[in-house]
Amino acid sequence: MKVVVLGADGYLGWPLSLRLLARGHDVIGVDNFVTRKNVKEVGSDSAIPIPAMKDRIKAAKDIHGFNMKFHEGDITDYEFLHKVMKEEKPDAVVHFAETRSAPYSMINAKHATYTLTNNISGTINLIYSMMETNPSAHVVKMGTMGEYGTPNFDIPESAYVDVEIKGRKDRITTPKFAGSWYHWSKVHDTNNILFANKVLKLTFTDIMQGPVYGTRTKEITDEKLHTRFDFDEVWGTVVNRFCVESVLGIPLTVYGSGQQVRGYLSLEDSVQALSLLIENPPEHGEYRVANQFVELLSINQIAETVQKAAKRLGIEVTIGKHENPRVEADRHHYNPEIKVLPGLGFKPKLKMADLTGQLIQDLVPYKEHMSRFHNRILPYTNWRKTENAR
Amino acid sequence: MKVVVLGADGYLGWPLSLRLLARGHDVIGVDNFVTRKNVKEVGSDSAIPIPAMKDRIKAAKDIHGFNMKFHEGDITDYEFLHKVMKEEKPDAVVHFAETRSAPYSMINAKHATYTLTNNISGTINLIYSMMETNPSAHVVKMGTMGEYGTPNFDIPESAYVDVEIKGRKDRITTPKFAGSWYHWSKVHDTNNILFANKVLKLTFTDIMQGPVYGTRTKEITDEKLHTRFDFDEVWGTVVNRFCVESVLGIPLTVYGSGQQVRGYLSLEDSVQALSLLIENPPEHGEYRVANQFVELLSINQIAETVQKAAKRLGIEVTIGKHENPRVEADRHHYNPEIKVLPGLGFKPKLKMADLTGQLIQDLVPYKEHMSRFHNRILPYTNWRKTENAR
Repeated sequence: MKVVVLGADGYLGWPLSLRLLARGHDVIGVDNFVTRKNVKEVGSDSAIPIPAMKDRIKAAKDIHGFNMKFHEGDITDYEFLHKVMKEEKPDAVVHFAETRSAPYSMINAKHATYTLTNNISGTINLIYSMMETNPSAHVVKMGTMGEYGTPNFDIPESAYVDVEIKGRKDRITTPKFAGSWYHWSKVHDTNNILFANKVLKLTFTDIMQGPVYGTRTKEITDEKLHTRFDFDEVWGTVVNRFCVESVLGIPLTVYGSGQQVRGYLSLEDSVQALSLLIENPPEHGEYRVANQFVELLSINQIAETVQKAAKRLGIEVTIGKHENPRVEADRHHYNPEIKVLPGLGFKPKLKMADLTGQLIQDLVPYKEHMSRFHNRILPYTNWRKTENAR
Repeated sequence: MKVVVLGADGYLGWPLSLRLLARGHDVIGVDNFVTRKNVKEVGSDSAIPIPAMKDRIKAAKDIHGFNMKFHEGDITDYEFLHKVMKEEKPDAVVHFAETRSAPYSMINAKHATYTLTNNISGTINLIYSMMETNPSAHVVKMGTMGEYGTPNFDIPESAYVDVEIKGRKDRITTPKFAGSWYHWSKVHDTNNILFANKVLKLTFTDIMQGPVYGTRTKEITDEKLHTRFDFDEVWGTVVNRFCVESVLGIPLTVYGSGQQVRGYLSLEDSVQALSLLIENPPEHGEYRVANQFVELLSINQIAETVQKAAKRLGIEVTIGKHENPRVEADRHHYNPEIKVLPGLGFKPKLKMADLTGQLIQDLVPYKEHMSRFHNRILPYTNWRKTENAR
C-alpha cells in the first residue's frame, strides 16, 4: 500500500513509518517539526536525543534498507497539503499531525486557541484535500480515549448510540466530555469527521487511543532510529514521566488520589494496532471507531509498577502525592468496549509490568541530559488558573 | 447596566445596541466590520444601505440622544479584546462577533477553516479575557437552534439531559448534530463554553436562536438607523430572502420538499428577548440555555405567507422549487422546549403573517439597488461539492 503519514517526526509517527516500511509499504512522511519547537518553548527537550529527519531517513536506509519519502510542511497550509495529496494519491493517510498536550492547551488563551485551531484546521484541510484529489482513500485519524471523559455508562466503540430521551427514541453521537482544550480539539475533530462522512462519504477510522508508553519497537534497533521521548509536565505522559523520575530520583508525581483509571498500551502494541487498522480498512464511505488500549490501570497501580521495576534495577524511588492541577474525577466508572482490534487479530505483546524495567534501563544513558530539565517535571500548569492571571 | 456588544455593526448587534441604549444602559460596541467585507466578497451587498459606524453613532445621538461608545477591532486578537475588557469592566458581554453563514462555510476548505477557527478562537479569547479581568460578568453568547439539527426527541432547553445507555444511567450534554461547518462551529463553542463553565465557573447564557426576519425595531425610526439586510444565497436567511424575491419578481427559492420546519422570530422579538436575558442574568457560575423562537413553520408555510403578503400589495410572485443544495432531513420531528424566555415575561409582538407585508414595503425603495445583485440569489453553494472541485 501507499501510505502518507502526517506527523511522521513524532513519538508515534516515526515508529509507525518504520513499521509500515518493514511491512513493505510505500511510506511518505510529512511534518513541520513544530513539536520539537513547542517542547523547547516550555524549557524542555526529548529525554532521548533524536536526529534530524534527513539523518533518520538515511539511518533507516543504511540499517534496514528502507526508502522513505518525506515532505516538510504544515498541513494547516491548504495549498501545501493539497499538492502533497495530489502528487502522492495514497491508499491511506495516517493523520498524527496535531498538537497533543493537554497542559500546553491550558497555559493561557494563546495556547488554547493555538491547540484548537491548529488541530481543527489541519483536519478540515485533510477532509477537503481528500475530497478534491482522492475521495476513495482511507483516512486513519488519531483521536484519544480522553474524548469520552469518564462517563458512568460503558464506553461503546461506535460513532452512534441508541438512547431514549423523554420517552422518544433516537440515535445520537456517542456522548463525549473532554477534560482540556486539547481533548476538546479531538472531540471537535470527531464531530467534524462524522459530518464529512455523512455529507461527503469519505472513509475514516477514528482511533480512540489511551496513553502510550515505551521507547522501542522491533525496528528501533539503533540509537540513530530512536523516537522522541517527552517527560516534562507539559509534554510527557504519565508512564514515561514516572520512568524518568525513577532515573532522576524524583518521587513519582501522582496527581490527586491516584485512583483515576485509563487504558494504556506500549509503543510496540500501538504500532502493531495501527498497522492492522491501516491494512484492514473499513468499507468505502464507512466511519469506523477503534478504541485502542491494552490494560486498564489506575495511576496508583502504575506508580507501584514503576516503583517495583526500579527496585529490581537497584533504584529506590518513592511515590509523591500532588494536589491535582487538572479538573477530573478522582473515582469513577470506566469500562470501554474493545472489539474492533481483537477482531482484526490484535494480540498485545507486553504488559506494563513486563516492560517498565527495560524502559528505565533505556533511559539511564540519558540521565545527564534529562537532569538538565529537572525543574520542568513537577506539575505547574493549573486547569483553574491561566498563566496570565497568576 | 454596562453592556459590551461584540459584533455591534451586525444585523442583530446594531438594533440590540439601540434597544439597550433606549432602556438606559451604557453600551460599548465592538466590531471589525468583516461582515461588510465578506458579503462583498461573494458579490453581494446589504439590500438596505447602511451608514458607517461613526455616522450610525452620530445619528443615534442626533435622533434619540443616545451616547454609544465604540472600539474597532477583531476579537480573535487577544490583546485587543483583553484591553477592551480590562478598560470597560462590563456587567454583561453580548457575543455576536462570529461569522454566521452556513453556505459561506461550505464554499471550500478556506471558508470552512475560516468559519471554524474565527468563531472558536473569538469565544476562547472571550473566556480568557473574562477570567483574567472580570470573572463575575455575564456572557450572553449567540448560538443557534441549528446546533440541535432535527432530532427525533423533543429538544430540551438545558445543557445536560439524563439518559440510559446499555442499562447504565448518566447525565450527558444535550445531543447535537449540525448541518454545516458554521453550525458545527456553534456546537464546538457550546462545548467549549460548558467546559469553561465547569472548570472556570464563568456565567453564561447560551442562546439557541432560530432564523430572524424583519427590518425594524421600535428604535429604527429613520433610514440613518437602518440595520443591514442580507438576501443573497450565501448571507441571506429564508424569510428575508423570500421578501426580496417578491420585490424583484423572482419565484421564491424553496429548497427541496419545503417541509423542513424551524423556529422563527422577528427582529423586534429577538431584540426584546435578548434584552430580557441580559437584564435577568442567571446565578453566578450558572450555564443557562435559552431556546429563542416564536413560531414553528415549514418553508412551504413561509413561502405561502410571503406570497399572500405580496399579493395584498399587488405583487404576484410564484413559488420555485430547487433541488436542495444542503444536506438536511426533508421530513422530521421538531418539538423544541421553550420555557426560559416565557418565564422572564417574553411576549412576542408580531407573527410572520402580520409582518411580511410591512417588510416587503420597506424593501421596495431599494429595488434598484437589490436588482444589481439579482444573480446572487439562486442557490449555488452545494454541500456535497467544494468550489475547488467544480
